[in-house]
Amino acid sequence: MITKNDLSGEFIDKIISIDGGICAVSEVEVAGVRNGKYGVSIIICKDSNVTGVFTSNKVIAAPVQYTKKIIEDGKVSAIIANSGNANCFTGDQGIFDCEKTVETLSKIFEIPKNEIATASTGVIGRKMPMDIIIELINQASQNVENSNEASINAAKAIMTTDTVYKEAAVEVTLENNKKIKIGGICKGTGMIAPNMGTMLCFIATDAVADQKVLNESLKNSVNDSFNMVIVDGDESTNDTVLLFANGKSGNSILVDNNIDKNFQEGLNILCKDLAKQMAKDGEGATKFLEVEVKGAKTKIDAQIASKSVVKSSLVKSAVFGGDPNWGRIVAAVGYSGAYMDPDDITIAISSEKNLVNLVLDGEILAFEGTDNLKTAESIMNEKEIKIIVDLKEGTYDAIAYGCDLTYDYVKINAEYTT
Amino acid sequence: MITKNDLSGEFIDKIISIDGGICAVSEVEVAGVRNGKYGVSIIICKDSNVTGVFTSNKVIAAPVQYTKKIIEDGKVSAIIANSGNANCFTGDQGIFDCEKTVETLSKIFEIPKNEIATASTGVIGRKMPMDIIIELINQASQNVENSNEASINAAKAIMTTDTVYKEAAVEVTLENNKKIKIGGICKGTGMIAPNMGTMLCFIATDAVADQKVLNESLKNSVNDSFNMVIVDGDESTNDTVLLFANGKSGNSILVDNNIDKNFQEGLNILCKDLAKQMAKDGEGATKFLEVEVKGAKTKIDAQIASKSVVKSSLVKSAVFGGDPNWGRIVAAVGYSGAYMDPDDITIAISSEKNLVNLVLDGEILAFEGTDNLKTAESIMNEKEIKIIVDLKEGTYDAIAYGCDLTYDYVKINAEYTT
Repeated sequence: MITKNDLSGEFIDKIISIDGGICAVSEVEVAGVRNGKYGVSIIICKDSNVTGVFTSNKVIAAPVQYTKKIIEDGKVSAIIANSGNANCFTGDQGIFDCEKTVETLSKIFEIPKNEIATASTGVIGRKMPMDIIIELINQASQNVENSNEASINAAKAIMTTDTVYKEAAVEVTLENNKKIKIGGICKGTGMIAPNMGTMLCFIATDAVADQKVLNESLKNSVNDSFNMVIVDGDESTNDTVLLFANGKSGNSILVDNNIDKNFQEGLNILCKDLAKQMAKDGEGATKFLEVEVKGAKTKIDAQIASKSVVKSSLVKSAVFGGDPNWGRIVAAVGYSGAYMDPDDITIAISSEKNLVNLVLDGEILAFEGTDNLKTAESIMNEKEIKIIVDLKEGTYDAIAYGCDLTYDYVKINAEYTT
Repeated sequence: MITKNDLSGEFIDKIISIDGGICAVSEVEVAGVRNGKYGVSIIICKDSNVTGVFTSNKVIAAPVQYTKKIIEDGKVSAIIANSGNANCFTGDQGIFDCEKTVETLSKIFEIPKNEIATASTGVIGRKMPMDIIIELINQASQNVENSNEASINAAKAIMTTDTVYKEAAVEVTLENNKKIKIGGICKGTGMIAPNMGTMLCFIATDAVADQKVLNESLKNSVNDSFNMVIVDGDESTNDTVLLFANGKSGNSILVDNNIDKNFQEGLNILCKDLAKQMAKDGEGATKFLEVEVKGAKTKIDAQIASKSVVKSSLVKSAVFGGDPNWGRIVAAVGYSGAYMDPDDITIAISSEKNLVNLVLDGEILAFEGTDNLKTAESIMNEKEIKIIVDLKEGTYDAIAYGCDLTYDYVKINAEYTT
């Protein structure tokens, strides 16, 4: 849920959280159905311009290869996604199964095959159970509609080890005071890594925008959102983020050849909200962890330092145990590669209500027996914890999102395939 | 324990595993005592040449800063190490406590202060409990001797979350048929990462070698051993490996200005053995995991690919669960950055008795219902598992060492400080 707290001053009245998920955007019609571990989501978005961001893993699932080609011309009218099988490491058969899936949808909705994108998530290296998938497509296609309920069903149908469905939507007042909407659904809990994990995310907007503009705005947003979520550091073969614009609002997001800054911020906020939902639902997570690094010498320093802390198994275990072990935080910053001097560093932790300094300008404040340590311990027992590291070496900052490392993470991943 | 299997052809008769640990080397006298979580080890190695390899973390513990300076002139006569407190992030007081520790030892053994190195491991950011440490130094100094029992005591006294002490020794027949010995002790189970974790390792040899030669041989060995052990990917502030030569054998390891190849291999084998002991004792580990990547385009490709697999939380969880989930192995190779083509890759797993191919030249062999999968499942239930990945892109190989990710890893690290 996006709140006013997520918005900085100038955007407070320009971006409003709304209901509806991906169906907040008019004329986007969706459906989702499940059968045990398999699920299918259909998104109908006729005559949309589209762009995508995909996994940087060298092992690339068939649907990612397929969809990259499909969207080359910048046009899409439907998306078909499935959970339960990643259709990865499946050779020629994998591509053939993508074609078969697309063909099935094409016939039902009378949409040209070259306007249908596809995405998959699930186990790697197993042939797609096409009988089940086609049956699910047939079922789902009977319930395609523009409603919040349909958005929720579509969000649910792509879940794997997710425990909650994930959607968000905003209404943005553009610089020219006209309004557009952005809505999305996503899934992802495991393999969430720098450069995204097994996440599927589909974002619609009714703004008028061509592929080039969409591409630029999406890249801006992904860098500060999905690329800053780390659950376990593993990186998936299937990551797919698609952003498409059906133009139904009639309002362009280009202002003198620049992207409308309110649209960009609206998309940023939406992506960050979805990213946080994924981090909160990290496999086995009991706590949400946000790590802000401030005062870094460069933007990259801020990013690698914050990601290093949020990724550290030792920090994550300490968060699970409710232990304000700032020594592990310092160590994780120290090996991140970011420019830092231990004598300058300031470390604080905060929850919604409390904030306490553990280290100030290199001096330890949270010794045993101090009030700082007691406050820190009570904060560490909250469900949402923020670690703030000020390097005091420059002006750049970044925030990374993650969760604690728990017995259940191990349990889920020790038992997942079989 | 080093066996003939660890030795390739030409070295089988040149390197023999022997008893004694660090005290296999004559005139090296050691002792170790504990008091609860604190321990002190003393190593007396008069008039030795010395070299060291240290943490690359930007946060560097006081004893590392101190010892780096002490060994600059290449001479050392004693080492004093403690467990229970890392003496890290302790400011000027930390360096003062190093001096105090060294001074105490200096007086007892009448060794000049500038010939004494020091090392620490334990909690970060707490002042050293100097009363306890000095009392332990006094106690230990009464039992310094050259015996296997003393080596074991010294190895035990530096343990933190280690569950077993770690030592190894070899006798090497040099190219000129003269013999020398190498022996060492080490500790380390957590924060073991690329570029080493919180590990302390002290290696003695009775060979004749100056600092330059020791330095070159140690760097060669560390790259293929300690730098290839990953338990959790966190990297410590205190890592210290010291190699010292007291020359008591009278035999030089220089042959025409080159390092004797049998000595180098002996040191390699010793370091690999100690590295494996650390991986086997990884925090919470129930299984030892070795990942060999062959056929890589470059040495670096082989190293990053093998480390990526051994470090993957998803692979480690699968190993714990006994699940031959080769899809996670492929994904970890794919995001490692190493040059690879999924269509060329071969993946096998093996135990002491069995070996089975899961993927051969990009084709999956271990489908559900196949004998390959059944054999794979039985191998995954062994205590020592080797994953072999052949990229078929070149001639380079590397082996990384690690362990499974278990409930106990989380338990140990959620509860460690308090």
